[in-house]
Amino acid sequence: MALGKFRKEETLVLRKKLIGQSCRLFYSEDPVKIVKARGQFLFDENGKRYLDCISNVQHVGHCHPSITKAASAQMDLLNTNARFLHDNIVIYADRLAATLPEKLCVFYFVNSGSEANDLALRLAHQYTQHEDVIVLDHAYHGHLMSLIDISPYKFRKLAGQKEWVHVAPLPDTYRGLYREDHPNPGQAYADTVKDLIEEVHRDGHLAFFAESLPSVGGQIILPQGYSTKVAEYVRSAGGVFVADEVQTGFGRVGSHFWAFQLQGQGFCPDIVTMGKPMGNGHPLACVATTVEIAGAFTANGVEYFNTFGGNPVSCAIGLAVLDVIEEEDLKGNATRVGAHLKDLLLKLQPRHQIIGDVRGVGLFVGLELVTDREQRTPATETAALVVKRLKEEDNICVSTDGPWESVIKFKPPMCFSMDDAELTVKCIDRILTDVQCLFKA
Amino acid sequence: MALGKFRKEETLVLRKKLIGQSCRLFYSEDPVKIVKARGQFLFDENGKRYLDCISNVQHVGHCHPSITKAASAQMDLLNTNARFLHDNIVIYADRLAATLPEKLCVFYFVNSGSEANDLALRLAHQYTQHEDVIVLDHAYHGHLMSLIDISPYKFRKLAGQKEWVHVAPLPDTYRGLYREDHPNPGQAYADTVKDLIEEVHRDGHLAFFAESLPSVGGQIILPQGYSTKVAEYVRSAGGVFVADEVQTGFGRVGSHFWAFQLQGQGFCPDIVTMGKPMGNGHPLACVATTVEIAGAFTANGVEYFNTFGGNPVSCAIGLAVLDVIEEEDLKGNATRVGAHLKDLLLKLQPRHQIIGDVRGVGLFVGLELVTDREQRTPATETAALVVKRLKEEDNICVSTDGPWESVIKFKPPMCFSMDDAELTVKCIDRILTDVQCLFKA
Repeated sequence: MALGKFRKEETLVLRKKLIGQSCRLFYSEDPVKIVKARGQFLFDENGKRYLDCISNVQHVGHCHPSITKAASAQMDLLNTNARFLHDNIVIYADRLAATLPEKLCVFYFVNSGSEANDLALRLAHQYTQHEDVIVLDHAYHGHLMSLIDISPYKFRKLAGQKEWVHVAPLPDTYRGLYREDHPNPGQAYADTVKDLIEEVHRDGHLAFFAESLPSVGGQIILPQGYSTKVAEYVRSAGGVFVADEVQTGFGRVGSHFWAFQLQGQGFCPDIVTMGKPMGNGHPLACVATTVEIAGAFTANGVEYFNTFGGNPVSCAIGLAVLDVIEEEDLKGNATRVGAHLKDLLLKLQPRHQIIGDVRGVGLFVGLELVTDREQRTPATETAALVVKRLKEEDNICVSTDGPWESVIKFKPPMCFSMDDAELTVKCIDRILTDVQCLFKA
Repeated sequence: MALGKFRKEETLVLRKKLIGQSCRLFYSEDPVKIVKARGQFLFDENGKRYLDCISNVQHVGHCHPSITKAASAQMDLLNTNARFLHDNIVIYADRLAATLPEKLCVFYFVNSGSEANDLALRLAHQYTQHEDVIVLDHAYHGHLMSLIDISPYKFRKLAGQKEWVHVAPLPDTYRGLYREDHPNPGQAYADTVKDLIEEVHRDGHLAFFAESLPSVGGQIILPQGYSTKVAEYVRSAGGVFVADEVQTGFGRVGSHFWAFQLQGQGFCPDIVTMGKPMGNGHPLACVATTVEIAGAFTANGVEYFNTFGGNPVSCAIGLAVLDVIEEEDLKGNATRVGAHLKDLLLKLQPRHQIIGDVRGVGLFVGLELVTDREQRTPATETAALVVKRLKEEDNICVSTDGPWESVIKFKPPMCFSMDDAELTVKCIDRILTDVQCLFKA
């Protein structure tokens, strides 16, 4: 395949004609055509280089040669389905088990975070024998029908809320119910889930489903103590705690391999789902759970077969990703660069009234813009402007999240460097200064 | 990765420990460990070669070098998501469009047949504004929650039938309601759908969802005229016809690229889903539909984003598969070898009372075993015995399907040869002769 067969305008025309319009493009007014990438850099059809702050899927860096090598070696050897015995699937499961608490020791391999969350929901339903689910406000768990049902971010725009779905407040200490001035927001937010459990009742059995760091919700860091308490309430009601690590797993938070581990050693979910970064772009995802929950699922006597799930190529790629994370100390890099990025953004805050909040762990960082610091009014338009100008003036790709698209998010490939962080913040500083003049003028 | 790190017994122990038991193994009493494959051949850890009659996913042959080459070249260059403009996705959509009737010209790329069918269901619901679905008895459309709901093969063993799901008789002319002696089984079976539509009513809007050749149902060939008539009834009630080509597309039937085309030029579904063979083992699947249905989906204003769907690597692989199908005339091969296989099996029929029916098109062939030709009693045990003995004595992999697992199915890689067909039938002949002696003794 050549670097580009069509001129960008031609590609755009064909794209509009042939691909469903519901599949949107970044920078829809002037989309970017990318033909090549390496590490944390994207290249367009004219050779222009973009710094990529958003491709969390290309976790160890775009087109990492170790991943390509592992993939082609295995593709050349074997790529059957998992109904045949093969070493890769067990070696990979064993390696993943080593990153998780001991009780999460049974694995199901699938092709996407959505497939993983759908299966997690099936496991939870089968184990609890009830369909009730508690989810966090603004959550997004995937594009499948079952997941739209448990994603307030989607179902509010579509079919609405099913009677078996219950929405708990998002534990957002910046603009939520309980804020940074609350003595114990973790406990306070956990109590909202406790109340909901009592309200739902129906024998109590239910699943609590949450991203370990709510992403679409606005790059939210759950307050300390929250998950431990929620797990306690959920379990005492016969329920299970599902941690959606699709966006946040594989060392992104730096200090830990999984974001749920930020809640302390005492906390362990009953089901963990993983996806996006797992195959560095290859469709690979997974559900990890306990012997008891897997046992309940087996007890229904029905086979679970996923055509491509856990095939030797997917597992070889997954293993190569784990190797690179270790060999290149990408967790350490996420800790160092993430801390520096957050620090630099915090240093901007006194000079830019529009910066309401800076939050994050490792290379999962959010910069929340507000038109009014007291009211914390979302600065949606300015956030969009920053995204646009960073792209047009500085060739830097970021995007927004949060219910009001007022949070500029950073979740770059894990090889993002100190220099990259400094350049990005310098450009944001310049743009925010401009914007301030614009508004004052 | 070495050809095998563990001894087979060790792999089996680890597999039982680490992978959910709902994920079953072929030949569960004595599973096969496969370490290498090429074309239509699998190799175990001792170098023993198996003839593969069942891997329809490895469509152009296991580990085809052209596919590996295309994958690694693109992996080395770029693998972003489809929010960036890229040529591969439009070139691939355009190539697929050329294989389909003109009105199926809008594409959505996803990672599995299940994801494709889930999206098809969403498209149908959005377009018809109703959730009613008519499916065929014994149908299987995927492992996701939404698809278990529309798969009698699964929901009968699990949650049961939802009130919005309606089951039409399987148009099986061997053991169904109307048989080969009926003057017009296509019309007769279509009328059962018509009756169901009238019964359902609720403004009539609904989706009709069917595999173009029901596979789990027992390698069924739909009678002529069936789909055209059903489509007429469904559309006059404001509904849509969804053709599930996940098992049957990409030239498997030999004479046509899509199995639905066996129903004649006059027939065109409203939505077509594709999967398994599409990426020769790479997780790649797709939904094709009309401008009207895609437009209704866009009109809800909600983005459809599939993280890995339509990425440059998946599309490069998909394109390479299309190239190999053409370059190696695999459709032609499926026609010739499939016809020969069916012919050879038919020739066995007079000598083996246990052969109730031989049916198929191209390399989609079923051999139905019965203990009694008059009663057409499924010979489930003998079918299992044939599968076991073919593996143990002849190193040939086949499997069974159908509601009673009495149909030996053949859906090999498309490079399956005349010699392979002759060897397989010779071995079946020998085993059936043995079995006959066994029963007579």
